Amino acid sequence: MLFPIFLLASVAAAATGVIFKPGAWYDGLRKPGFTPPKWAFPVAWTIIYLLSAAAATRVAGLPGAGAALALWAAQIALNTLWTPVFFGARRMALGMAIITTLLVTVAAMTVSFWSLDRVAGAMLLPYLAWLCVASGLNWRIWRDNPAVPRPAA
Amino acid sequence: MLFPIFLLASVAAAATGVIFKPGAWYDGLRKPGFTPPKWAFPVAWTIIYLLSAAAATRVAGLPGAGAALALWAAQIALNTLWTPVFFGARRMALGMAIITTLLVTVAAMTVSFWSLDRVAGAMLLPYLAWLCVASGLNWRIWRDNPAVPRPAA
Repeated sequence: MLFPIFLLASVAAAATGVIFKPGAWYDGLRKPGFTPPKWAFPVAWTIIYLLSAAAATRVAGLPGAGAALALWAAQIALNTLWTPVFFGARRMALGMAIITTLLVTVAAMTVSFWSLDRVAGAMLLPYLAWLCVASGLNWRIWRDNPAVPRPAA
Repeated sequence: MLFPIFLLASVAAAATGVIFKPGAWYDGLRKPGFTPPKWAFPVAWTIIYLLSAAAATRVAGLPGAGAALALWAAQIALNTLWTPVFFGARRMALGMAIITTLLVTVAAMTVSFWSLDRVAGAMLLPYLAWLCVASGLNWRIWRDNPAVPRPAA
């Protein structure tokens, strides 16, 4: 039963949201009209992490799951990287590059999971949908807040 | 050929070392006598990331590789988390908890890889050895610098 191991990886990614909080800096930024309410973020990510860990557990025992699990590893590393870059280092352009790579990786992962197990593939669709919103948000915040200074090192 | 996907995950982890640099804060900390020279860190991590991505590529096609690849995903997420927590948020105690979890995960991964393919298991030994040094370093720096303030949020 590999669920606890995939969950450990997801907890590492989720921890970034607790350690690198948006705070006053983020509250002061201009945000687009489609920005979800604050409460939606931890709710969405909890659902996404649980579903994607469960989906990985479903496919991990299947023959030919190597590519699916390699993509799962890539997405969890990119996911762990985004939060400290955006909310810690406050580097919006670099955040945009990371979340775009993450979106492409999760799209490839969804196709790979789907081809092994339709249910596991479907379990990744909320992740893909949420990343479309999150990357749109990153892009608009980056574009609409050109003069926001970064903190000193 | 899954090497580029495992390498993408490793690049995400490695990027933290470029984005969250040690800098003047780290230079001013008391460090133990066994601290490796500065140049050794990027050299060691480059070797470790290449070897662990190559090891994962070797085992990914083998039957029963699910646990090995789940552990690989967990270590790359924990690895990506440690640098921004230690050098970005400057939370040494939390860094210690993360690197200890990482060390246990990599030890389990090495056993798991070894049981599938001796060469792949041996390719993880430099990672395990370096983590022993790095976790000892985190512990001593934490213990020997009790009054170092964290940056404001």
